[in-house]
Amino acid sequence: MSSDVLLSLSQKALHLLQEDADKIEKLIEVQMENLTTRKCPLYEEVLDTQIYGLSREIDFAIRAELITETAGRQILMKLERNVAQLYEAMSQNKE
Amino acid sequence: MSSDVLLSLSQKALHLLQEDADKIEKLIEVQMENLTTRKCPLYEEVLDTQIYGLSREIDFAIRAELITETAGRQILMKLERNVAQLYEAMSQNKE
Repeated sequence: MSSDVLLSLSQKALHLLQEDADKIEKLIEVQMENLTTRKCPLYEEVLDTQIYGLSREIDFAIRAELITETAGRQILMKLERNVAQLYEAMSQNKE
Repeated sequence: MSSDVLLSLSQKALHLLQEDADKIEKLIEVQMENLTTRKCPLYEEVLDTQIYGLSREIDFAIRAELITETAGRQILMKLERNVAQLYEAMSQNKE
């Protein structure tokens, strides 16, 4: 097996997953900025669905041995931390 | 780029996706066999979630250039046909 090809495929896979994670980060940021308005009650559902979708992509990439479990876990953990912060801010805003 | 490495990675990716599709097929079959009992009202939601997850895996594999769009579309189309048949059978059973 050529390690160059594998490396470039792995980098590409990581890059694609990071792009998808960044899109979710943007969703979180937008909602953070609009805490006081909270126009869209479907926000949590959209975020959950997007994160579930990304977790399936990451799981697939790990099984295909394109990325390591650690790299996959890091992407998801960062997102989940930010989502938790958002939900906390949302609930404090409600009080 | 070594075409051997790419071929083996592509085959592995397709195999993994087909495995996930097969799991959903099993869900459909089980429900088809239990049309008269229909114990679980969450069945449709579970199926929809699983198919959404698989579609995200397939989309990722296409973007990573591991599988062709055609191959990806074929896996999903077959599943969607079977789900449609299940829903039709379920609705006829209701009447």
